[in-house]
Amino acid sequence: MKKSKIRVNFNNMMKHRLGSYGISEMDIKNLSSKINLAIKNLKQKREDGKLGFMYLPYDTKTNEDIKKVSSIVKDRFENLLVLGIGGSALGTIALHKALKHPFYNLLPKEKRKTPKLFVIDNVDPEVANGIFDVIDIKKTLVNVITKSGETAETVAFMKIIWDKLIKQVGKNKLRDHIVITTDKTKGALRKIVNENGFISFTVPENVGGRFSVLSPVGLFPLACVDVDIDELLKGAEYMDSFVTINNVWKNPAFMSALLHYIADKKFGAKITVMMPYSNALKDISDWFAQLWAESLGKKYSNDGKIVNEGLTPVKALGATDQHSQVQLYNEGPYDKVITFIRVENFKKDEVMPHNFKEEETFSYLSGYSMADLLNIEQRATEVALTKNKRMNMTITLPEISEFTLGQLIYMLEVETAFMGELYNINAFDQPGVEAGKIATYALMGRKGYKEKLKDFNLGKEIKRYII
Amino acid sequence: MKKSKIRVNFNNMMKHRLGSYGISEMDIKNLSSKINLAIKNLKQKREDGKLGFMYLPYDTKTNEDIKKVSSIVKDRFENLLVLGIGGSALGTIALHKALKHPFYNLLPKEKRKTPKLFVIDNVDPEVANGIFDVIDIKKTLVNVITKSGETAETVAFMKIIWDKLIKQVGKNKLRDHIVITTDKTKGALRKIVNENGFISFTVPENVGGRFSVLSPVGLFPLACVDVDIDELLKGAEYMDSFVTINNVWKNPAFMSALLHYIADKKFGAKITVMMPYSNALKDISDWFAQLWAESLGKKYSNDGKIVNEGLTPVKALGATDQHSQVQLYNEGPYDKVITFIRVENFKKDEVMPHNFKEEETFSYLSGYSMADLLNIEQRATEVALTKNKRMNMTITLPEISEFTLGQLIYMLEVETAFMGELYNINAFDQPGVEAGKIATYALMGRKGYKEKLKDFNLGKEIKRYII
Repeated sequence: MKKSKIRVNFNNMMKHRLGSYGISEMDIKNLSSKINLAIKNLKQKREDGKLGFMYLPYDTKTNEDIKKVSSIVKDRFENLLVLGIGGSALGTIALHKALKHPFYNLLPKEKRKTPKLFVIDNVDPEVANGIFDVIDIKKTLVNVITKSGETAETVAFMKIIWDKLIKQVGKNKLRDHIVITTDKTKGALRKIVNENGFISFTVPENVGGRFSVLSPVGLFPLACVDVDIDELLKGAEYMDSFVTINNVWKNPAFMSALLHYIADKKFGAKITVMMPYSNALKDISDWFAQLWAESLGKKYSNDGKIVNEGLTPVKALGATDQHSQVQLYNEGPYDKVITFIRVENFKKDEVMPHNFKEEETFSYLSGYSMADLLNIEQRATEVALTKNKRMNMTITLPEISEFTLGQLIYMLEVETAFMGELYNINAFDQPGVEAGKIATYALMGRKGYKEKLKDFNLGKEIKRYII
Repeated sequence: MKKSKIRVNFNNMMKHRLGSYGISEMDIKNLSSKINLAIKNLKQKREDGKLGFMYLPYDTKTNEDIKKVSSIVKDRFENLLVLGIGGSALGTIALHKALKHPFYNLLPKEKRKTPKLFVIDNVDPEVANGIFDVIDIKKTLVNVITKSGETAETVAFMKIIWDKLIKQVGKNKLRDHIVITTDKTKGALRKIVNENGFISFTVPENVGGRFSVLSPVGLFPLACVDVDIDELLKGAEYMDSFVTINNVWKNPAFMSALLHYIADKKFGAKITVMMPYSNALKDISDWFAQLWAESLGKKYSNDGKIVNEGLTPVKALGATDQHSQVQLYNEGPYDKVITFIRVENFKKDEVMPHNFKEEETFSYLSGYSMADLLNIEQRATEVALTKNKRMNMTITLPEISEFTLGQLIYMLEVETAFMGELYNINAFDQPGVEAGKIATYALMGRKGYKEKLKDFNLGKEIKRYII
């Protein structure tokens, strides 16, 4: 049986389409030694066990554990409340939106079948308060996800929920309502798991938050809403057979990274737009934005030079953003690479009826389906951009399924890791968020941080600079 | 009584905070003649009736009509379905999210009081199909919004709804379920209004889609869900008294435009991040992204030179994106201006209880509210960015209300218009989307467009550029 492979088409990045605004095969050839070094380094990192995310597709044991727990809890609860932020939330949100009904939480129980899903990924006061108007906490399972076990935003909401659970279900029933996903041994949350006998899952030590969607971080909540997690992993495994090919011309992750790298270094294109033509795939851009921004936005190179590298991810949605961003993409600065995601076959569709026969401005649409129109608009936008010499590429999904999304997620992760090698930066740390964390602690007067307050004094505030 | 005025604080854009990475007062002084010309031109445009959006706060007659209709229909329907795209959708989505409950559609009827709101702003096949799983069309009011009366995406969905309505409520009841918002005289939709006696509203001719949220485009659906549209307009009117001041040092819209202009021209900062610290304000960034991208992304200057101007809007959300984008903002290229939106007083809040007393990594949060934490995080992020010499500014809303949002919307609209003058481009057209529209028609074989197909041939597709 032929498998549904996703495809990357980069004709519209190249010279034969864009002339002097495009990339030539010579540009790629000129980078051979850099490419070979990047391939070698990445391979070495994998062999050294540093790229934990590349082991996830093969972790069948964890997968079985997840399915065991999720199969029990999913029928017992009306709501699943995920507490997590950044990498602990974005993958779950993206895949849930991609794979489930577009109005999932509004569906009646008999159509929905599995619990309503709420992912709380902010310390928003109105959300923290409002959530209790729409969920009965006695019928809610809470999945607390933080790798470090001490992420402020996640802990903040957990403290509130904890209190309410104890009041409403009692302290001895607490553990029926809580599943914790955190580090295997470190952090306060693991201690609490051990002390209370909570059900828990592990975020592998060598898997960073933004690469963790195919670990229990994403897989447990997704399994609870009947996403086929076996197929997700099979998709990732299938993609693994392509992204380990050493020839960049056969490796979609390497080639895609390389094209973005050249677009930046040769043309100064520092903005990466991801523009799926499908509402279901909208939040994949959000997940990708974190992956790309946190991995590649770095001050120092691996050899300690100040480089201030980074491509800025921009989220767009077709066809909607044709009426918003596309004017800029067609006519603004030549500072972007636009990646379309296109779906060949949609699960559901609606055909436009043959009404308004007298009105040509309406009737030309008759007989086309929504999917037809959407894909024609994608094609039209791609063509217009290419005619305007704007670099763009298209990832095609044969359909939206666990198998194709597993491929997509995994390909983009490997692409990001490879980008790190090309830029000669560490794609796996995030030193640039530390200062903000410390400033938060200092401003809150947390023990041991008060004396840091002086480091965060910005000096005098000029009154006429406030209007 | 002191009115709740929103404030723009741009200390962190300036030299005293950022040194050579900041803007000096001399930079502003040096632009005096450009500024004076921009002010003069904008004033002239307003006097010539070209800036229709500046009249909207004073259109009390239309406002009364909207309230009359909305007060009747809002009790009669379970759902309000808005069909529109771009400027016909984004403002409504943003203000609804800002001013209503964070889980509005999930609220039980007695708490919600007004109809569920669905804004369909894409031709997505799964949404078009899935919407009928969650609404009963017999209990639904449909507001079709397109200024031209022929926007493909909006018409596409309208054709489907039309057919279903006729089947389910009958042709003679059709007009009870449809309200149309379109041009006063032009376009196919106006013809249909006239022929069928539908209730309708007018998009003023001199108000472009992206400037139309305070026209019936936004006000009618918002009034149907009990947003106080009088207060929205009062907020805009109040802001009008500031954004018409000729002294840029007293005019928040002019000053903000000017700072972005200098950031671009002096420092090459072509990316504008809007980062509200509030889930409710999340979609204001989306609305703003359209306003900014379509208005300022232009190939030609007013005197016909090729300039390829444009600032790329990026949407972020605090504190969530501290775990996603902020690494890049702190360490990546110096190519951004970050605008925070901060809320002083939230309507609802939750305080973190004094639990986990033994666990310092949790207990330092106790006693703070979610709003405290959120605002401290905003401050910490702002401080970290400023310490890293990253240009940022903060818009403070005393609270989230119709009055403050009316101010914000109007200020940003005037800022955009003033930007157009500084860049010497036309902020009110969108020629760069025409080619895509024509390509769509050609690919669909629409009458009169078939022969255009040859213009959109990209030439041969190279097979090895597809992996």
